[in-house]
Amino acid sequence: MNLALMGFGTVGTGVEEILFKKKDFLSQKGFDINIKKVLIANANKKRYPKDDSIEFTANFDEILNSDVDTVIDVTSNLEETYKRIIELMNAGKNIITANKAVVSKYFEELNETARKNNVYFSYEASVGGAIPIIHPLMEELQFNEINSVSGILNGTSNFILSEMEEKGLDYDVVLKKAQDLGYAEADPTADVCGFDSQRKIRILSSLSYNAKIKEEEILTLGISNIKKSNIEFSKNNNYNIRLIANSQLKGEKIYITVMPMLVKDPFFSNTIKSLNKVRVTGEYFGEYRFFGAGAGKLETADAVIRDLLRIYNCSEIKPFYTAEKNYKVSTDLENKYYISVKEVKDALYKVINRDETNDLHHIITKNLNFDELKDILNSYEEDEIFVAAVEEEK
Amino acid sequence: MNLALMGFGTVGTGVEEILFKKKDFLSQKGFDINIKKVLIANANKKRYPKDDSIEFTANFDEILNSDVDTVIDVTSNLEETYKRIIELMNAGKNIITANKAVVSKYFEELNETARKNNVYFSYEASVGGAIPIIHPLMEELQFNEINSVSGILNGTSNFILSEMEEKGLDYDVVLKKAQDLGYAEADPTADVCGFDSQRKIRILSSLSYNAKIKEEEILTLGISNIKKSNIEFSKNNNYNIRLIANSQLKGEKIYITVMPMLVKDPFFSNTIKSLNKVRVTGEYFGEYRFFGAGAGKLETADAVIRDLLRIYNCSEIKPFYTAEKNYKVSTDLENKYYISVKEVKDALYKVINRDETNDLHHIITKNLNFDELKDILNSYEEDEIFVAAVEEEK
Repeated sequence: MNLALMGFGTVGTGVEEILFKKKDFLSQKGFDINIKKVLIANANKKRYPKDDSIEFTANFDEILNSDVDTVIDVTSNLEETYKRIIELMNAGKNIITANKAVVSKYFEELNETARKNNVYFSYEASVGGAIPIIHPLMEELQFNEINSVSGILNGTSNFILSEMEEKGLDYDVVLKKAQDLGYAEADPTADVCGFDSQRKIRILSSLSYNAKIKEEEILTLGISNIKKSNIEFSKNNNYNIRLIANSQLKGEKIYITVMPMLVKDPFFSNTIKSLNKVRVTGEYFGEYRFFGAGAGKLETADAVIRDLLRIYNCSEIKPFYTAEKNYKVSTDLENKYYISVKEVKDALYKVINRDETNDLHHIITKNLNFDELKDILNSYEEDEIFVAAVEEEK
Repeated sequence: MNLALMGFGTVGTGVEEILFKKKDFLSQKGFDINIKKVLIANANKKRYPKDDSIEFTANFDEILNSDVDTVIDVTSNLEETYKRIIELMNAGKNIITANKAVVSKYFEELNETARKNNVYFSYEASVGGAIPIIHPLMEELQFNEINSVSGILNGTSNFILSEMEEKGLDYDVVLKKAQDLGYAEADPTADVCGFDSQRKIRILSSLSYNAKIKEEEILTLGISNIKKSNIEFSKNNNYNIRLIANSQLKGEKIYITVMPMLVKDPFFSNTIKSLNKVRVTGEYFGEYRFFGAGAGKLETADAVIRDLLRIYNCSEIKPFYTAEKNYKVSTDLENKYYISVKEVKDALYKVINRDETNDLHHIITKNLNFDELKDILNSYEEDEIFVAAVEEEK
């Protein structure tokens, strides 16, 4: 099989490394795989592939018009990559992508175009790094209803939260450390503001419920306003704060949120460093939980290679997502919230749960509908308030 | 696709129920599956399939000589089922089995016969109930080295241990409760003496390391001698007792054990009721953890159906296990042990770790090689001694 790569960053070099190191081993198992070309933005930048015969090009047409069967997208670009994937599918090429931004924003279009052209569209690496989650879900969806999906889907924010907790450090200090260690990007917005988790829960939920979910319909709160005192408060009350992505199908409604949460459930609370966890419930299998490396060069490449070998053997599941279910995305869920502000304004004052609030800097609310919470959030500047849902007692 | 079932117990009725309820749904997705015949031991016993047109027979030849492509084995019989599976494979039929006793005892023969006849041999349901573990492992093994596999693989013994712990009850009382609830069989030997876990870790390890491992080479200790006082001791020392199956590949040696263990690692210690957990480490994916229902009618049937749909689509991975690696199974591992006896004999007296033992009924040993431990075990009657490994401090 001849293939091309789009992108040669962290994951791309990982894919090339595994395919190079395992060439003989794969060949013994009947997999004869050649990377014919790698698309990069800057053709003059020196690259160091393991296989030094690999050709680099900055000209997309060389990929589009080549004889490769399959293209692996490991770019992080959104609109340009989307257009290119569509062109490649229309040219009959299978697509494997680790690009969660593209998969999330254009999930309907990508599935439809793949179906129309009868090509494979595989995106295991877009959620949960090495964790096998997309493919097992696809297998279950052939005969199962999925009821809920939740998880810790962003390793960067989990690293920050668990590190603040363990070391008693400030957010800025830990963010800087995460950046120095390569866990966080120079611009950490997507991770710490919840957008990365939002994309992943959108992908998992749309696939699971066969429903269209727009990113902007997902109630998303991040951790960028968290202070040491919020961690201390949660510790003193036997909670851990984690950024949880959660979606449930109830009746004809999908409830879907990404928000910091005060949790006691050890599944979430024990998650430290940059690990990812996913929990899925379904009709026949009951509940699964998966845990593993949510990112990393070789870990993410591992997921790409699994997709690739399935496509090689024509054993991948063809796209069946049609977004045909007319479920409404709803925010009509009641929850208690933990709210930390300097000054308590009227709207907030009214919803304080007086039995559980001893200190007006650390408020636990009554059960609130999210629409009420929104009004409260809107009465503050974005950076004045830290909000987290409080896990229901079981 | 026409298929036959061998056995119509708990899992068999689950398989029939799902295929009946989801007939239209599966058909829309291109799966046209018919159960042509069900083999049962007693043809006179009244059966209640969902599809009342299903034919039952007690005559194996009717299955063997039928035109079915695939046979699902959900018996719990060992030798007879083994012979039948071999005959069916030789007749060109694919085999799906949930029968861990057969898969474990005859793993080499079953894989070889499947390969020789170019048929599928799928056994996801034999380990970990609904948890997708065999198939993900097979996918990884196409390009990965697996280094270790460990887990809580027996729900019955885990139910007993966690229930004794939570309720402060005696072993016999909890065993009786487990039997009343259907979690334990009338003869609980396979579960509480560790043989069920032994079979599962043998299957996972043989597959992972491509090595022959005989069941009797696996150091196996059960929980049937556990007393309330052992649970109390472990609680007082901030441990939980769990029955852990563990295998590691180090150099040319495989270390493989099933034994009760005093654990602090929350992955194991938080496992309650009849849940199963599996942890796998490998070359590129790092570490995965899976968690789910280790048994149950529909849960186990779910795993069978996943295998079935893969075979239907010719997308199952063909058996590649050849047992070609000459790794030695070794017991040459050092560990501390917790030993509870009424009377301390000489052999045991010599290995007491005096820093950690305050009470001669609850002994913590020095680091022992398992051969030394064996001598100690042999100096006691089997029912006089409870032994558990002590998790290494990290």
